[in-house]
Amino acid sequence: MSEAPRVDGARLWESLQQYGQIGATPDGGVTRPIFSVAEREARALLIADCRALGLRVRVDAAANVVASRPGAEPALPAILIGSHLDSVLDGGRYDGAFGVLCALEALRTLLQHDITTRHTVRLISFTGEEATPYGTSTFGSRAVTARLTNVAANRLPDGRTVRDALAACGGNWDRIAAAPGELGPVACFLEAHIEQGRRLEEAGQALAVVSAVCGIYRQHVEFVGEAGHAGTVAMGERRDALRAAARFVLAVAALPDTVAAADPAATATVGFLEVAPNSPNVIPGMVTAVTDLRAGDPTILSALVAGAVSAAEDAGAREGVRVSVGTVLDQAPVVFDARLRSALGAAVREVGGDGRELPSGAGHDAVHLSAVAPAGMLFVRCAGGVSHNSGESMTPEDAALAADALLRAVLALDR
Amino acid sequence: MSEAPRVDGARLWESLQQYGQIGATPDGGVTRPIFSVAEREARALLIADCRALGLRVRVDAAANVVASRPGAEPALPAILIGSHLDSVLDGGRYDGAFGVLCALEALRTLLQHDITTRHTVRLISFTGEEATPYGTSTFGSRAVTARLTNVAANRLPDGRTVRDALAACGGNWDRIAAAPGELGPVACFLEAHIEQGRRLEEAGQALAVVSAVCGIYRQHVEFVGEAGHAGTVAMGERRDALRAAARFVLAVAALPDTVAAADPAATATVGFLEVAPNSPNVIPGMVTAVTDLRAGDPTILSALVAGAVSAAEDAGAREGVRVSVGTVLDQAPVVFDARLRSALGAAVREVGGDGRELPSGAGHDAVHLSAVAPAGMLFVRCAGGVSHNSGESMTPEDAALAADALLRAVLALDR
Repeated sequence: MSEAPRVDGARLWESLQQYGQIGATPDGGVTRPIFSVAEREARALLIADCRALGLRVRVDAAANVVASRPGAEPALPAILIGSHLDSVLDGGRYDGAFGVLCALEALRTLLQHDITTRHTVRLISFTGEEATPYGTSTFGSRAVTARLTNVAANRLPDGRTVRDALAACGGNWDRIAAAPGELGPVACFLEAHIEQGRRLEEAGQALAVVSAVCGIYRQHVEFVGEAGHAGTVAMGERRDALRAAARFVLAVAALPDTVAAADPAATATVGFLEVAPNSPNVIPGMVTAVTDLRAGDPTILSALVAGAVSAAEDAGAREGVRVSVGTVLDQAPVVFDARLRSALGAAVREVGGDGRELPSGAGHDAVHLSAVAPAGMLFVRCAGGVSHNSGESMTPEDAALAADALLRAVLALDR
Repeated sequence: MSEAPRVDGARLWESLQQYGQIGATPDGGVTRPIFSVAEREARALLIADCRALGLRVRVDAAANVVASRPGAEPALPAILIGSHLDSVLDGGRYDGAFGVLCALEALRTLLQHDITTRHTVRLISFTGEEATPYGTSTFGSRAVTARLTNVAANRLPDGRTVRDALAACGGNWDRIAAAPGELGPVACFLEAHIEQGRRLEEAGQALAVVSAVCGIYRQHVEFVGEAGHAGTVAMGERRDALRAAARFVLAVAALPDTVAAADPAATATVGFLEVAPNSPNVIPGMVTAVTDLRAGDPTILSALVAGAVSAAEDAGAREGVRVSVGTVLDQAPVVFDARLRSALGAAVREVGGDGRELPSGAGHDAVHLSAVAPAGMLFVRCAGGVSHNSGESMTPEDAALAADALLRAVLALDR
């Protein structure tokens, strides 16, 4: 193991900055949502970069980009490494892209040092990992694990259907069920990702092995009151949907303290809220909101869900507003494969870390992959815990350490 | 006075229903915002209706539609009657359109009975009375009273500038300063309008004379926190702009009870609220809101304004969110002309009402006209007080009584 080559940290950092220019925001982040012009530009660059290395590149029915370096023993399943190139609006340049470019750097290093693996090593860039209001969250990884529900007719903000936007990226909704077969047998999946929290920073560590991913439950909550003139309907006679939604937002924020105190990683967020008709002089008649609830323990997650439903009902009752709650996402907590955690822990220790494990509050493509193959993840230190924000950052040194650890884990698992 | 003709209630009602088809919503209301296709269609129908009566029709620089019936004494200033044809999104079919069609019915009746007035009588349909996020509230009436600020470059939701959208309706921003002169001398302005409250319904009266219009103060409030990943930033480390905005919404709703208890007509509303980036898995980094504060007494209005500023600051401090507050609209309370109120009161009593007076919580075009000429308003009973809502309604009988009273007031003031 000590003879494993080191990656080229400068080359990796240059790629990170180059991809960070695609869909760049003025303050150093990126806006690169699924199927956007910027996301297509990023995938085109990745395809070009992989082809320049002589890798075999394929775009599957879900528009996932897969670049393969054949192994010495073609009968073995492939070692899969990667992440995603899309971002939230005004997101950071490392979330997702780092995992893809870390995988690219690992392949570049293998090629540079002429190291032949037994297993085929495949880089994968999954289409659209980030959540959107049009149902495409973890689009690519759900497609290759046969977990994608029918979102073909959902519309993007630009009016296109998911079906049409997918086709424009080289995918094909009519063949989406073939995506798992196209990928072929998978020995394991490894994903490097920025931590998106400040636990590594506080511990003075560059890397951690991800032990598990919190369960995520999302609810679509609709408050229906009665629109009316802001100057003529007496205060006591209103059924103001925004007043009910405001009560709900505050009650949801209090849930982790009240019903999930046993789980310090539990979170409850209202990140999406829309008011109708949204005119300054009209009492809001309808508000739609999406809640995002997370916990590592299924029992605590259920308590958060029940708490949010009660909070919505209470808020509606207080303001005379009708409430309906629907489930948008119900993703159980996932514990990662013990053998992969052990291999990743050893690799982290080899590059100087303590090999600690941390749970993830965020969902990742690796969660879906874990349903069909052993999966594992590495976390990289995140400045100030700032993520899903253009201020997201990491250091070149930490980036290189992560790529080194990823490469070492691949080589260990290949033996 | 007893010889004044009665209007044709069936003809008025038919017009109301016909105009209600333009921009109709599935549940019986209209969506006819300023400069929309539907608003242009409504103004085209009005122009055709007025031309069919042989009236002289003109579209001024603000795209106001003015239809005149010359009086016997051309040296006298004109009696102006009318309202507006635009609506809020999913608004009612009577708000605004009723005042225009009431004026049209009054003119039709004068023509039918061959009654020649001393003053020229002009029907006016003001462009864009309703408030919008792009600053066009009471566009037409502010233009003819030289009170319109420069909104030419503001953009509509469809991307056009106000300047271009105005031109498409026959207006001309470059000549906007000429609008008051184009209108010519005004003897008085009368506007009939649906009440938008339930005070007439509760009193069992069809009509009221409007005594005054509440002052309106609008603030643009911006909450700037920090966007972050909904699953990874610990609850206690968040600076969630939506949590601050939710506190603000509830505090604003409580203001009339706390600082304006002396004014039962005082209102405080957050009708507009936008979240950024508005993704389910991102902690809201920024929320913008518009508050609408109203009271008949300037001192009480000031107390509401100060209360809302404190509420915003408190909410920001509680959530670690930066707050800025700007004034969008500052419209002082207006008391209508005593002679017109008396004439309108007499007209209401002639058609069987008690001639009561009521203040208006809503702003109206008549507020601006009152700055350049005596102005007065009639209120018509509103079913359930429902307004700025597709469920807004009035009865054919009440509509005819209002047109009768308007016509009688015009004839009385003409003498």
